[in-house]
Amino acid sequence: MAIENVGQSAIEQNLEQFLLVLSVSLSVATLSRVFSWFRKIPYTLLLVIVGLGLAFVNVRLVNLSPGLILEIFLPPLLFEAAWNLKWRDLLENWVPVVLYAIFGVMISVVGIGLALNQFAAIPLATALLAGATLAATDPVSVIALFKELGAGKKLRTIMEGESLFNDGVAVVAFSLLVGIPLGIEEFDLPVSVARFFVFVGVGVGVGSLIGFGISYLTQRFDLPLVEQSLTLVAAYGTYLITEELGGSGVIGVVTTALILGNFGSRIGMNPRTRLLVTEFWDFLAFFVNSIVFLLIGDQVRYDNLAKDFGLIMLAIAAVLLTRIVAIFFLGFISNLFTKVDLSWQEMLVLWWGGLRGSVSIALALSLPVALAGRQEIADIVFGVVLFTLLVQGLTTQFLLENLGLIGDRKLQQEYSEMVARRIALTRVMKFLCEEKDFRQVDPEFYDLQMSLVEGELESLSEETYQMIVKHPQLREQVNEQMRDKLLDIEADTYAELIRTGWLDERLSPMLQEVLGREEDV
Amino acid sequence: MAIENVGQSAIEQNLEQFLLVLSVSLSVATLSRVFSWFRKIPYTLLLVIVGLGLAFVNVRLVNLSPGLILEIFLPPLLFEAAWNLKWRDLLENWVPVVLYAIFGVMISVVGIGLALNQFAAIPLATALLAGATLAATDPVSVIALFKELGAGKKLRTIMEGESLFNDGVAVVAFSLLVGIPLGIEEFDLPVSVARFFVFVGVGVGVGSLIGFGISYLTQRFDLPLVEQSLTLVAAYGTYLITEELGGSGVIGVVTTALILGNFGSRIGMNPRTRLLVTEFWDFLAFFVNSIVFLLIGDQVRYDNLAKDFGLIMLAIAAVLLTRIVAIFFLGFISNLFTKVDLSWQEMLVLWWGGLRGSVSIALALSLPVALAGRQEIADIVFGVVLFTLLVQGLTTQFLLENLGLIGDRKLQQEYSEMVARRIALTRVMKFLCEEKDFRQVDPEFYDLQMSLVEGELESLSEETYQMIVKHPQLREQVNEQMRDKLLDIEADTYAELIRTGWLDERLSPMLQEVLGREEDV
Repeated sequence: MAIENVGQSAIEQNLEQFLLVLSVSLSVATLSRVFSWFRKIPYTLLLVIVGLGLAFVNVRLVNLSPGLILEIFLPPLLFEAAWNLKWRDLLENWVPVVLYAIFGVMISVVGIGLALNQFAAIPLATALLAGATLAATDPVSVIALFKELGAGKKLRTIMEGESLFNDGVAVVAFSLLVGIPLGIEEFDLPVSVARFFVFVGVGVGVGSLIGFGISYLTQRFDLPLVEQSLTLVAAYGTYLITEELGGSGVIGVVTTALILGNFGSRIGMNPRTRLLVTEFWDFLAFFVNSIVFLLIGDQVRYDNLAKDFGLIMLAIAAVLLTRIVAIFFLGFISNLFTKVDLSWQEMLVLWWGGLRGSVSIALALSLPVALAGRQEIADIVFGVVLFTLLVQGLTTQFLLENLGLIGDRKLQQEYSEMVARRIALTRVMKFLCEEKDFRQVDPEFYDLQMSLVEGELESLSEETYQMIVKHPQLREQVNEQMRDKLLDIEADTYAELIRTGWLDERLSPMLQEVLGREEDV
Repeated sequence: MAIENVGQSAIEQNLEQFLLVLSVSLSVATLSRVFSWFRKIPYTLLLVIVGLGLAFVNVRLVNLSPGLILEIFLPPLLFEAAWNLKWRDLLENWVPVVLYAIFGVMISVVGIGLALNQFAAIPLATALLAGATLAATDPVSVIALFKELGAGKKLRTIMEGESLFNDGVAVVAFSLLVGIPLGIEEFDLPVSVARFFVFVGVGVGVGSLIGFGISYLTQRFDLPLVEQSLTLVAAYGTYLITEELGGSGVIGVVTTALILGNFGSRIGMNPRTRLLVTEFWDFLAFFVNSIVFLLIGDQVRYDNLAKDFGLIMLAIAAVLLTRIVAIFFLGFISNLFTKVDLSWQEMLVLWWGGLRGSVSIALALSLPVALAGRQEIADIVFGVVLFTLLVQGLTTQFLLENLGLIGDRKLQQEYSEMVARRIALTRVMKFLCEEKDFRQVDPEFYDLQMSLVEGELESLSEETYQMIVKHPQLREQVNEQMRDKLLDIEADTYAELIRTGWLDERLSPMLQEVLGREEDV
């Protein structure tokens, strides 16, 4: 039929590929919950394994290009991670984060480069380039992993902060080094340092401008869907503009998202919008992760990996060795000068949890075709990424548990559930009260329900109290979480009433006044 | 720098165009709220006007292709509309919906075709093809308009139902007619009827299969993000598969979404997921609408419109005349045989609100290049679409108000606000109670707040009661809305506690049991 013929276009092909990838990922997500023995493996790593399986039978879903990774996949993942990163937590740990992000990368570049040069006779310039490609931990992989592991706040903040910021450093090292083996440029330290500052500075500058711009803009109106769209425009727009101006798109997006998540969402968005936006980015990150990790596995060429097996093993050793040196040495310095106080167990997790991922692959794929040894570097990078994802990724949980770093979690969850149940029951009681007001309910049914709920509530209240008396450390958690809750629930009420159609989308002045009053309580 | 050069790809260009379009749209959305005199104009129509302005100064943002409209924009818009369409409402009004969707389109095709043939000497086959292009009301435009107008439930259901289903009929008419003016085919009634049934049948069949398949699939697990992704896969997947099999993609998507929204979301999703998915599609529809309507305006070529001004005027007259005949004649028949009972005022709104939009444009753009008079038809379609959007679109509200069809809204809203306030205050009271439990609050502050809230609650309760006594018709609304609420709020509590980190993402068995119990209450 006529319109079908015209429609059978590139758009349709792209759409089909995209739906295929997504369908495979969702099947993995679903099956992993149905078969319990899969549940121990984080979702993202399961996707890599399935991708590897598809590559093994030579099913290639989509060609992964550096443009696709850097421009389509990276901005939303960085945005989501930085949006949820608390400024206060980051500030508490800024010294180790900055040390690891800057000097950690440098140690890795030099260490990996020297190892490949000394033991594999790769020319120094090319070896250092390989080092730069592998130097940065991957925010996508690291955050996906640590989210699922449930590690402590300090560990998560340092790990996520480092991986969000070290890409900027690695990318600038990469771009400084890439001209040298081709003979286009020579290494010049002052120029390199200047370039580094321009690269990072433009990123922070553009990111701040866009972040604060949108923060103040959204303060002037209350349009949830527009504000939600603006965050999306901010993520991709910041990346493109920063890159266009010669800065680090990664640093740009991270800056914008940190500002919007910690500042803009508080001054410019009502709590309902904030929730909407957070949920939206949760979904988007899940969505993009579902595609990225499957494709990483699916891109692997086994024959190349086999051919360069020795090189890959050497690179893995170098990556692990340079990172353990960097983590412990810089951690020791950080402990000397700050109150962060990293224990050796925590440093061990920081070392072993330093996964490499999509950013390394994007850098490797973007190596100039004219470069001698391009294929070797690409193979090394794929090999190292797979090793870190599969071997390190799958064993980090084991490490965390055996080092006693997720100890209190069970108790906390038990307690949280009790409190949650109490809140839910109180709400049920409130609704029972309202129904009575309306004089529509059978009084016997009402009384029965009421006494049931009251009885349960009383025993719950007592249990919770006993638990706090027994484990006073729970108290701190309670206070911290209780603070945000009142406002959230108040706002959620309106959100929910607007959704179910009780209230017009445009809040009337009366309700806005109530909202304003609640905020002072 | 290296990776930028590689990255300066087609991807980046597409992304830039997309961000540009979105930024313009969001500016329009924002400005329209800041300057109050814009607020009277529906957002979508404002976008068309801005698009026209850009076209006037010859700024062309993106080239709108039929593939883009039909495969990228249409599926999510149809999905969102049908997801929110209540099966019960549709069933109540199925007779007029089916009459308008099938016979209304036929009357329009023949009427417009004959008018263009008789008064503009366009060959009959070509004239009928133009008729088919213009026959169907556009779901996107109609739904966007009626959502903003706040018309009554019956009007909305009939209008949305008609516009969702009549595209199938119009597209089949178009594809039957498109071969004839080229001399490839001749018109053959039995074949045409058979084709129509295949076209619609495949759509309904594939849509049902996918809809029920996903409904039962999601019943087997509770993974909000996966279920959310599945709805997206369902929307685009159904469209592609149905078209691939020679059916109507439009009918397919509408069927899938009706099933998922009315059946799958109830049996397979917990209330929290249902809310998440609904919010997600709200956003997606806003997002796509923001692009579509701007581009419709931006595609206009003024010189062509001026050249074919006479033809366009003739077509507008024919479109209006055939629709008034169809609406009143078929409405009369529907009134004879059903209890729907359409008044002449309602029919008048159905007539005047029958906007044409993106589907007509997509059909016009997909006309074979070899067709004599192709440019004229395209001009006619753009002219008619603009007239319906701007003239009819901007005056439908006026019509609704003057025909007294949005009468009770103010009272209802006033009442809803009072109830919302009461619910919010009750929650505040509950939280005060909890704080007391924790023995952390100053008792005087506590008592003051408590008595304040109690006093307000009492007077509100009395006011609400008086209002219901005075306006008993509010009672029905109350009962209907109250039903869904208890469950929603219970589920929302957990959702919110999971979001704020009190609870683990994976609901523990204890909480699931509570959820199960609440559902029976």
